[in-house]
This record gives sequence, C-alpha cells and structure tokens, in this order.
Amino acid sequence: MVRAPEKSDKFSFGLWTIGWTGTDPFGPDTRPALEPWEYAEKLAELGAWGITFHDNDVYPFDADDATRSERIDTLKKAAEASGLVIEMVTTNTFSHPVFKDGGLTANDRAVRRFGLRKVLRNVDLAAELGASTFVMWGGREGTEYDSSKDLHAAHQRYAEGLDTVAAHIKEQGYDLRIALEPKPNEPRGDIFLPTIGHALGLIATLEHGDIVGLNPEVGHEQMANLNYTHGLAQALQAGKLFHIDLNGQKGLKYDQDLVFGHGDLLSAFFTVDLLVNGFPNGGPTYDGPIHFDYKPSRTEGMEGIWDTAKANMETYLLLAEKARAFRADPQVQETMKAAGIFELGVPTLAQGESVADFLAAEEEFDAEASGARETYFVRLYQQALAHLIG
Amino acid sequence: MVRAPEKSDKFSFGLWTIGWTGTDPFGPDTRPALEPWEYAEKLAELGAWGITFHDNDVYPFDADDATRSERIDTLKKAAEASGLVIEMVTTNTFSHPVFKDGGLTANDRAVRRFGLRKVLRNVDLAAELGASTFVMWGGREGTEYDSSKDLHAAHQRYAEGLDTVAAHIKEQGYDLRIALEPKPNEPRGDIFLPTIGHALGLIATLEHGDIVGLNPEVGHEQMANLNYTHGLAQALQAGKLFHIDLNGQKGLKYDQDLVFGHGDLLSAFFTVDLLVNGFPNGGPTYDGPIHFDYKPSRTEGMEGIWDTAKANMETYLLLAEKARAFRADPQVQETMKAAGIFELGVPTLAQGESVADFLAAEEEFDAEASGARETYFVRLYQQALAHLIG
Amino acid sequence: MVRAPEKSDKFSFGLWTIGWTGTDPFGPDTRPALEPWEYAEKLAELGAWGITFHDNDVYPFDADDATRSERIDTLKKAAEASGLVIEMVTTNTFSHPVFKDGGLTANDRAVRRFGLRKVLRNVDLAAELGASTFVMWGGREGTEYDSSKDLHAAHQRYAEGLDTVAAHIKEQGYDLRIALEPKPNEPRGDIFLPTIGHALGLIATLEHGDIVGLNPEVGHEQMANLNYTHGLAQALQAGKLFHIDLNGQKGLKYDQDLVFGHGDLLSAFFTVDLLVNGFPNGGPTYDGPIHFDYKPSRTEGMEGIWDTAKANMETYLLLAEKARAFRADPQVQETMKAAGIFELGVPTLAQGESVADFLAAEEEFDAEASGARETYFVRLYQQALAHLIG
Amino acid sequence: MVRAPEKSDKFSFGLWTIGWTGTDPFGPDTRPALEPWEYAEKLAELGAWGITFHDNDVYPFDADDATRSERIDTLKKAAEASGLVIEMVTTNTFSHPVFKDGGLTANDRAVRRFGLRKVLRNVDLAAELGASTFVMWGGREGTEYDSSKDLHAAHQRYAEGLDTVAAHIKEQGYDLRIALEPKPNEPRGDIFLPTIGHALGLIATLEHGDIVGLNPEVGHEQMANLNYTHGLAQALQAGKLFHIDLNGQKGLKYDQDLVFGHGDLLSAFFTVDLLVNGFPNGGPTYDGPIHFDYKPSRTEGMEGIWDTAKANMETYLLLAEKARAFRADPQVQETMKAAGIFELGVPTLAQGESVADFLAAEEEFDAEASGARETYFVRLYQQALAHLIG
Repeated sequence: MVRAPEKSDKFSFGLWTIGWTGTDPFGPDTRPALEPWEYAEKLAELGAWGITFHDNDVYPFDADDATRSERIDTLKKAAEASGLVIEMVTTNTFSHPVFKDGGLTANDRAVRRFGLRKVLRNVDLAAELGASTFVMWGGREGTEYDSSKDLHAAHQRYAEGLDTVAAHIKEQGYDLRIALEPKPNEPRGDIFLPTIGHALGLIATLEHGDIVGLNPEVGHEQMANLNYTHGLAQALQAGKLFHIDLNGQKGLKYDQDLVFGHGDLLSAFFTVDLLVNGFPNGGPTYDGPIHFDYKPSRTEGMEGIWDTAKANMETYLLLAEKARAFRADPQVQETMKAAGIFELGVPTLAQGESVADFLAAEEEFDAEASGARETYFVRLYQQALAHLIG
Repeated sequence: MVRAPEKSDKFSFGLWTIGWTGTDPFGPDTRPALEPWEYAEKLAELGAWGITFHDNDVYPFDADDATRSERIDTLKKAAEASGLVIEMVTTNTFSHPVFKDGGLTANDRAVRRFGLRKVLRNVDLAAELGASTFVMWGGREGTEYDSSKDLHAAHQRYAEGLDTVAAHIKEQGYDLRIALEPKPNEPRGDIFLPTIGHALGLIATLEHGDIVGLNPEVGHEQMANLNYTHGLAQALQAGKLFHIDLNGQKGLKYDQDLVFGHGDLLSAFFTVDLLVNGFPNGGPTYDGPIHFDYKPSRTEGMEGIWDTAKANMETYLLLAEKARAFRADPQVQETMKAAGIFELGVPTLAQGESVADFLAAEEEFDAEASGARETYFVRLYQQALAHLIG
Repeated sequence: MVRAPEKSDKFSFGLWTIGWTGTDPFGPDTRPALEPWEYAEKLAELGAWGITFHDNDVYPFDADDATRSERIDTLKKAAEASGLVIEMVTTNTFSHPVFKDGGLTANDRAVRRFGLRKVLRNVDLAAELGASTFVMWGGREGTEYDSSKDLHAAHQRYAEGLDTVAAHIKEQGYDLRIALEPKPNEPRGDIFLPTIGHALGLIATLEHGDIVGLNPEVGHEQMANLNYTHGLAQALQAGKLFHIDLNGQKGLKYDQDLVFGHGDLLSAFFTVDLLVNGFPNGGPTYDGPIHFDYKPSRTEGMEGIWDTAKANMETYLLLAEKARAFRADPQVQETMKAAGIFELGVPTLAQGESVADFLAAEEEFDAEASGARETYFVRLYQQALAHLIG
Repeated sequence: MVRAPEKSDKFSFGLWTIGWTGTDPFGPDTRPALEPWEYAEKLAELGAWGITFHDNDVYPFDADDATRSERIDTLKKAAEASGLVIEMVTTNTFSHPVFKDGGLTANDRAVRRFGLRKVLRNVDLAAELGASTFVMWGGREGTEYDSSKDLHAAHQRYAEGLDTVAAHIKEQGYDLRIALEPKPNEPRGDIFLPTIGHALGLIATLEHGDIVGLNPEVGHEQMANLNYTHGLAQALQAGKLFHIDLNGQKGLKYDQDLVFGHGDLLSAFFTVDLLVNGFPNGGPTYDGPIHFDYKPSRTEGMEGIWDTAKANMETYLLLAEKARAFRADPQVQETMKAAGIFELGVPTLAQGESVADFLAAEEEFDAEASGARETYFVRLYQQALAHLIG
C-alpha cells in the first residue's frame, strides 16, 4: 500500500520501546527481554535508520566496567554491521530507587551528586558513540506534595544540573546537543518542566542554554491537554527543536505510548504536515531523526512487537504522502489564500513603520463588516480531512 | 472568625468579575449590570484596595471620545473618592466579532492593525490612570483547526505585537509593565501561549522582554492539568511574576472562575503559603496585588455578587493565617528538615568545584541504602493538612 | 469524491446547530439569525432528511399562543414542502434565567412545576408534529457546589419528572419515546446523569422506564474522558439506544460541538463502523436518524454554516465507505479471527453447563503459555487505520 | 488533635495498600514486602477494624493447595488475634499475563473459563472467612483498540460472568454480596463499566442483580472527570452502595491512590458529610466499612507506610468532626433553608395530583422575578469552607 521504509526516512527507535516487556502498575512482564543488539538487528531489517537508548537499556545499573564496556561494544558492532546510526543517547535517572525523589532535584544532595555523575559519564559515552543528541528526561524530578520541595531551589538545582552537563560538553568539545523532554506527570504527580513552554522558559535562564533544546513527545504534551503541533511551532521559532518523540495517546490518562497515529490521528496528520511541508510562509524546519518513543501494548506477544514497530513507520509514511498531496492541491492552496494563511506571514507594521507613524495613520476600517467576514477555516479543514480519508 | 480585609492586604478585583451578569453558552444574563463606579464603591466598602478593568468594561466598543472620557473620568473620581487604586488595566480584544480570529494574530492584517491600535490606546489610558501593570490576555489568539494558521507566523506576529506595545511604553517613558495571561483553551480550541511556561518561552525571544512578564491565573493553569504553585515558582525564578489572578476551578472543564479556594483547596493553601511565607530557602518573592479574577456563579442573585466577593477575601485571609501557623510550627520545621527541604537549597556542586574536580572526587555512596531512605513527604503534607483543617 | 447525501441516509440536524449565531462566554453573536424555516429549507437542499428543534428555537419563551401556533405552522409547512421529517423535538429548560438552577431538579418547587409544564406542553407538540423521539437534556440539572442540593432528593425529583412525562405520553397514547441526553458538565459544574451509564442506571429505577432511553452525544461522553463507541454498545445491549447526537470534541475542555470527525477521527471511524456494520457477532443494531448536534465555529461567516453542515454529512459518508471496506476485507476478517473477536461471541459456560459441572470439570490450561499468546490487536487496528487513510 | 481511631469507626484497609512496594511503570520496588499478617497486626495496632485482600495478596498465583491453606490460616489467626474483621475479599484477575486481555471478557474463551474458576474459588474463601462483601474490579476488562473486541459480546460475557458468580453465591447460601468497582482506564485504555453509572446500568440487566451492587472509589470516578459524592448519591438511591473505597487523586492523570483527602479536599469533606450526616431530607444511608484503597507513595520508606495509613484515618476523623459541626450550626441550617435544600425534598406534584390536574391548575408564576431570585449557594458553600478551615 505504502512503500517500505528507507534509510533516508531517518526512522529511529529507542531500544526501550520494542524492548518493553509489559510490566505496568497492575501486573508483571508478559514478554521476555531480548538482548539490545537483537532488537537493533531486527529494527534494521524493518528499515530503521537509527537507534537510541538509555545507559541501563544496555548494561545494568550496577554493572562493573568490564561488563559495561563489553555490552556497549557488542551493541556498537551490531549497529555498525546493520548500518544503524546511534543518533541519541539518554540516561536512566528514574528507575533505581535511589532516584525515587529525582536525580538533579532530589532533596538529598548526595543523590544529586550521584545522579549528576551518572549523567556526565553517559555524556562521554554518547560522544564516543557519535550521537548528536543527548536527551534528558527528568521523569522523577517533581513532587506529589507541594510541601515536599522548595520549588525555587528545585528549579535552581535543575538549572545547575543542566548547566553543568552543558559546560562539560563544551569543555570536552563534544559535537553534542542536550534535548530536554518535558512531561507533565507520571511517574511523579507533577513533574518539573511539564511542557515544551516550561522547558523553553528554563533554557532561557541557563548560562549554556545555547546547546540546550527540546525533544518534545506527542503524548506528553497531550497529557497536559495541549496541542503538540502548536508546541513544535513554538520550539522551532525559538530555534530549539533538536529532536522529536512520536507516539500516540488517547487523552488525559496514564502515559499510553501508543503507536504514532493510534491516538489523535488528525493531530498526527498536521504534525507530519509540518515536518514534511514546513510552515506555509517558510521559516525554520526540522530535519532531524523521526524518532518513535512508544510501547507495544502489554497485550501483544513477540510478533506484536514487530507489528507495532512497522505500524509506526507505515503510519508516518501514509501521513506524509497525504500531507504532501494536501498541500500540493491547487484547491487547497486557494482555500488557504482565502483563509488568510499567507496574509499572516506579512508583518503587522509596514517595514520601517514606527509606532508613532502607525498611530497617526488614518485607516478606514469597518469593524462590523470585518466581524462578519468568512474565514473558510472549516472548509480548509474539511479539505484536509478529505485528503486524509478520501 | 477572620479579621476584615484591610487596604494593606492589597486585595484587588476586576470590574468584569463582580460585573459579570451571567451570560453563558446556554443562556442569557440572570442579573442586571450596574455602572462600573457602582461596583467600585461597593468593593471599597468591603475592604478592597484596588480595581482593574478592560477598556470596554467602562465604555462601549464604539463609544465616541466624549463618552469615553466622561465615563473614565467618572470611574476615576469614584476610585479616588473610595480610596481605590486602579492598579491594572487591560484591553478587550476578544469580545467584538472583529476579533473572532484574534487581535494580534488574526490572519487578516487589517484586523491586526486595528487590534494593535486598540491596545496601544489603552496603554496610554493605563499610564494616565497610574496603573503599574498592563495585562494582555490573548483569549482569541489561537485556533480550533491546525490548518487555519501558519503557526510560525502566528508566533512571529504575537511577538511583533508584544514588542510594539513594549516599545511604545518605553518610548513614552511610562512606568508600566506588561503581564501576559496564559490560558490553554476557551474561547478558542487551542490558545497560543497556553501556559506560564509558553509565555516565559516567548518572552525570552522578545526585543523588549525586560518589561514583559506574567499574570498567571489559577484556573487557567489547572485547565492545562498543571500545578499552579509550581508555575508561580518558575515565574518567580525567571523574575517574571508581575501580577496574579486568583480564582477556583474544579478540574478539566470549561473555565469556571469560581471563588478562590472553591476549587482545589489544598493547592490554594500552598499558593498562599508561597505568597505569604516565600520559599523555605529564601529567594524571589511576590508583593504585588492579590487580584481576584473570578465570576459570581450564574445562579447567584445580586446579593450573591457580594457574598462571592467577600468569600474570596475571607478565604485568602483564612489560608494566610493557616499558612503562617504551619510554617511557624517547630514540629513542621523539624519535618521539613528531615524531609530535606533545606538541603535542596544547597548547590549540588561545592563552591568553586569544577566539573573535573567533581568527576575526580571519590565519594562513598550506597545507592541501595539511599533508595530505602525515608522522605517524610506524606508526614509533612499531613501536618499541613492538619494545620489547615485541624 | 463521495456521493451526495440522500434521504435514505437519514441525516438530521437540530435547528439550533446551523442556527447558532456565535455567542460564547467571551463575546456576542458573529452571525445574524435566520428564521427557522429558512434553515430547514437550506438543509433540505443539502440532502438532509430530517430536522429537530427545541420549542424556543421556533418561538420565543414568552410567545403568546397565536404567535406560537403561527410560527410552528410555518415551520411545519416548510418542512412538508421540503420533504423534511420532524423526527425529534426537545424542550429548552436551560436558557431562561428561571431555569438557572434546573427545571426538574431546581430547589424551588414552583420552578419545577413551571418547568414540568413546559416539558409536558412540548410533548403534545412533538406528538402533533409526528416526532418519534422526545429528547430531554437536563443541562441545568446539577450543581457547582456539593452543598447546594440534597443529592438524593435531586435524583428523586429527576425520576419523578421523567416518570410524569412518560406517564403523560402513555396516557395520551402518543407514539413517542423519551431519550435522555447525558452530559458531565457545562453549563453546570457537575450535571446529573453525567454519562450514558448514569442515565441507564436511573432509567432502571423508573416506573415508566420502558419508553425512556438514550440520546448519547459524542462530545459529551468524551468530556467525561470516556469512549463513545463503548457507551453506544452498552446502550444497545440495554435496548436503550433511541437516538444519537454526532459531533466532534478535542479532549477535556469546553463543549466544542465541532463537525463530526473533526475531533477524534479514529473514534468516529469505529462509531460509524458500529452503526453501519453492527457488532461482529450480531446483536442489536441502531437504525434511527443520523443526527448531528454540532455548531459552526464562531469564526465562520454565513457561508461557513453550510460548509460545516455539508462537512458533517460528507465525513459520515466517507467513514461509512471506509468502514464497509474494512469489514469486507478478507485479510481483516482473518485478523479478526486470529484476534479472537468471534470467540468472544461464544458464551463462557457451555449451553446447559451448571456452575457445579463447570467447577467439577478438569480442564488442562497452561497459564504461562496463554499469557504469552499473540493477540494481534495492533495488527488489526493498523489494518483499520490503513483502510481509513490508505 | 483528633481522637485516635476506634473499632466503631469501622476503618478497614486492603492488604495491598500498605503492602504496595513501589513498583511503577518507570521503576521497581523501593520497599521490601512484609508478610500479610505482619501488615494486619500493625493495622490493628493503629486502630483499624478490618482488613481486605485479593487472593494473591496472601498466596502466590501458582501456590499449591497446602501453601494456600497454610497462608490463609496464618492470616486468619492473626486477624482473630488482633481483633480484625476480614470484611471483604476480592480476586486478582489482572496481574498474571494470562489476564492481559481480561478475565471475564477475554477474547480467549479458555482464559475466561480459567478466570471464572479463579473467581468462584475465591467466593468460597470469602464466605469461609466471613466476609460480607465480594468486590469485583475488572481492571483488565477493556480495550486499547476499539477493533479488538465485539463490544456487545464483551458486555454479554461480563454479564454472564457476574450472573454466574451471583448464582453460585445464592446456590451455596452464602451471606455475601458482590460489589463492582468501576474504573474508566488504567491499566487498559478504556475499561468496561467505567463509572458508577455504567455499573448500575449493567446490574439492571442481570438475572441475579439483587445481590450485585457497587464499591465506588474516589479516584476512579475523578479519573472520569466526575463528582464522587454525586455518584454515591445515585448509588444510594438505587440501593446499591455496598462498599466504598476512599483515597485521593489530583485530577486527570495516572491512578495516584493518594491518602484520602490528599486530592480534592473539599470534595472529600462533602463525601464525609454525606457518610456521617446523611442526606438533608433523609433517605438511604451507608453504614458499611470505611475502607481505604490507597498507596503509600513510592518515595516513602517503611515508616512512611504507617504515616500514610494513619493519615487516612486522621483525615477522615477530622473531616467527620467538621462535617458534624457544619450541619449542626444553626446559621448553616438557616442558609440551607434559604437555599431551598429542604424544598427539594418536597415532590413536584402534590400527593395524588394527576398529570391532568396538574396541567389544568392555573398557577401564578412570574418567571422574570423567579429568574432573579437569590440562591445563596455560594454563601452556604463558604460557610462550609469556613467550618472546614476556620
């Protein structure tokens, strides 16, 4: 129906995605775990271009140096043999009980120092493996109880931690950028940096914020009741869209990590429209990896792992095809024009127009007539829908 | 039960709050409107310190200059006579049909120019009346349909509009700061700058962002499934908490604008705890107006208007009293210490410690023991609850 | 692209849908109102089969008898002339201030008597016009404040009101069934009978519950974070799916009343799949009107009204086509079989098997092997998605 | 501050509550497990009256008969020695991978037969231990994908399973009632019987529904965006409130299982008000166990387990005290009267009044005046709040 994935699609998967064995708060694993390199090889067969992982996806929390090296080495060789890029590395500072109150913002300073060291060591690994992005998801940085933290100190410690990692990257001369991954809740009641916006806000206060950007995830923004594509747009405008996490989520509930498109399909369409077609009036674009951060549902068996991996790529390719046709359709372009999409690209003030000039200008304007104007917003949306399912 | 409100409490109300006559999407007014100055006088009697308003709370959208001046003048005199401060002024760019697609980000450039002029004219009024804050709530800046806007251009136009207003304030030498009011949705499906974080993010990209900050509203953040007090903390850390809007909201539904505390009471307690006690380890504080942005429910009659106005102030004073006693309690202080609240105020790296030193340091750390540590988070929270309702 | 609507599609619209003029909590009308019969005529042109209305969509709350009769008569003639069926009538017990605390459950007994009379009079009208369904949406039956009602008495009064209306229908021998329309909130903070389930629960306690069923609305169930198609299934099983309201909603926010399919498109697909294909193993079906209860967004002009009306029908027809192809696809049938869809149609106990026999039977069962079984749930879902957008 | 818990308070805890060791989707246990009887003994010390458990809280899924008997016996003796009542027993049909697609509604019939046997065997145990309530929470009965089940067959199988269990109870002559526990989602995307209402609806279709009622949980209803106290009221009216699960939840996110009152405190207050004071106009009451179904947060250590257990009881007792004082306050009673709370207890039709009489009666009614009436709803709510925190 749709062509097979190709390397040029830059599809990438976290090893923890296909590697999720099904433990949830109400039951244990339903599937055995393979070795990381086994997942990688299979992903390559399916057409993936890259892989990503947390340190402890590859070696245990308490691995000795020999084990760590050996396992990393095996994965590295498998990736090379399969032609897979290790495009991103991230650190697990959320699973071990020691991080139950966070890594960078734990009240306990010894924990923070331990957490920060774990992250820094992993930066070195990321650089060594040639990754271009170092994701930081602070899943345990947060609270269930407003009294349990000095909320100002928590933000200070978060900033301190990020600046320390960024400084280390710069000092070492690594070609690596940090991408923060916002999430509003789960596993903590309220996680710090809950949305794209909050991460942008904190980055703006950092000393080394120039190499710190974002890795926004579809489901995470939707868990904050927000529009993912709007968030991408603001991140792009700020020059901070370093990486993306595609998946699916059905509204305000636990983090579902469904296949991309299996949640809000129309929203997924407009996300892909932005990724493949860019903004209607030009502007910044994203050309990084198309990274999937999802989970094969716990009901699935071993075959289901690969069904779901394929489904992510298939859905993306289908949406990309539809999005290109949508934008290329002359009738759509006409409706876009009628709807004023291109007019929004024109600055409100004329070039060189001062505020004083602007206020002094006498412009005819009929507010009543303008209020009654047609916008054609639904017509355009329906054209999109007809392209999508027609 | 609790003392009466005093001027020093700096309680302030929007004229549109007690002035709301009860129109909602399913029915018209249930109460008649008074004149703005009548509301103001009554608020003063109840102990309020300040008032705030939108231009069109005082004079109609299409008022001629004489009417406008006369009505402003009457209000001003009433405020002076009642000892009320006009502490904030804001612009209505959301009610008239002309703004149905936004004021600063409407696709139609003529609308944007009209909207911007309306805002700028109102800045002059705010300055003239001695307001210190100029709130900008872009309630119609947004979309229902992802295709209906170039999302990058929309953010550019928003930034352009804000910078133009800020530039005008600076050029005129007004002692006025802009405070953005984020909201995730309603009346638009997805509003731009949906949360405190997104506003902080955009401000960081402005040319004149130094005089642009925030006016966060309890219910608005909660409509994005977020923790209001966490948001205040991040705004304070960024030096951007210019104003606040207190009210109540019961979860993810339409904007309820209940009395402060009538939504999530425990969250309200911790908000007040932050406002009156500050952060446990010190840091930035908020000492601006305690501004209520709520609505007397449509079921209420004219007496209900004043019942609700009083309830806001009474609740705040009750919570303030409880919050002070909570923090002053030696047992609470002890639990705070045991919970590590003060330890979070200590930087993770020692003063002058370089990353290299840090990585080289050999520190004993027992991750298993640390993972099993007590945090006393629930004990502390229960102490707060016992102070609140005990 | 898709064929034009036909009478046999049984598409029906509320007059208040295309007739909504755009008033929302933050602004007044953006469009003028036409006469009810003007909307009807245009709907007929577009291919609609039926219309529905509230009493006060046709004549004012305070209309005298002559005006009422005359306006009803004009509408009736227009419907006849256009070949439109008046398939459902409903009562407005939510707009006028008198109903601010509800119609059937207002604390004020005089209001309840007034509300009940209004409903009963409208039942007579519905019967006179040949409607087969009488919808009751108790939009103002509820609370913002838990203390404001005796919650038991409220449910008793609700039941009393419904039983009175049902008794009247029976006494008069009308061929009319009542359909309750659940909604969780808006315009009240918490509305009684918030979901399909709660309505089913109350109906089961009625004396005349046999002629009382449901009119579930897509967006309303979704505002309770629930799956609409699941709700339809339970209503069908209870023999209570009397009518449906199709529209679109984007998650947990104000009631958006978008075009059908413009909210959660995949959910809409499975709703249509159920409506046109029925349950895989047979069982009760719905063959009533395909009724749209939506609003043309406030941004739309007069042309937009008809764009949106058409979009509802077009989307339904597109989804119906896709759903039929999906179910007819042999590969899909095969996956359905592998996924156990048909096996769920087989009772758990064998015919005539007693509990004692069942407990006594010794059945081999390997729980570990079973736990590892493939379910093919994602494969099947992806096949649906590929049918939908492929 | 508040008196210690007493047996007469009928406080009861699930063994899985204090026994939760902290595994969540992002990390393993943070606390070791004690033996079930160790938890029981400690609960008794703290003042609890009863305990409850799932079969596999006491013995492993694959325990042989000897182990099962021995462990049950040890628990039974410990309960007796501590004076604890085993008031409720429930079955784990959700943890083992075999139940990944449900127990009673799994597509695989062999799984359904296995699940049903597990439940029936546990009914016998419940009866043997003298429990009065047998809770059925179908946590895995549901879907992530609408195509994955015949939704009608699923409801049929659910009904079949419940009727089989109820028939067994009757046949055996056990003094035991089934209480369904609704939940909207987690661990499944959409769980069948998502709310109190849906359970009431299904019960009404059962053959043996007379011994099937409800065990509503605070957080579960709130995860469906609903008002818990409203739900209790409807369950009471239907004569179906057999048991309750108290805990706390902060809005629409993963199932938090916080301490009772640590979520929405005002809602908790009105729940307790209903439990201790009943409805203002009388009616059905609940006098069953005050059962807590919560989890000590993963951040807590072993001490935290008991802090949280105590906090549940302390909060309940504090709220009960406040609720009694609230209702006993003459000023409150006066406002309740002015608000019409007692008037809602009066039927809308007079005793013996027929519909015909009612319609024929000529009653003066001034809708405009009535629409402007005061309701005093906020005044009353603020009196409640002042009682709570004053």
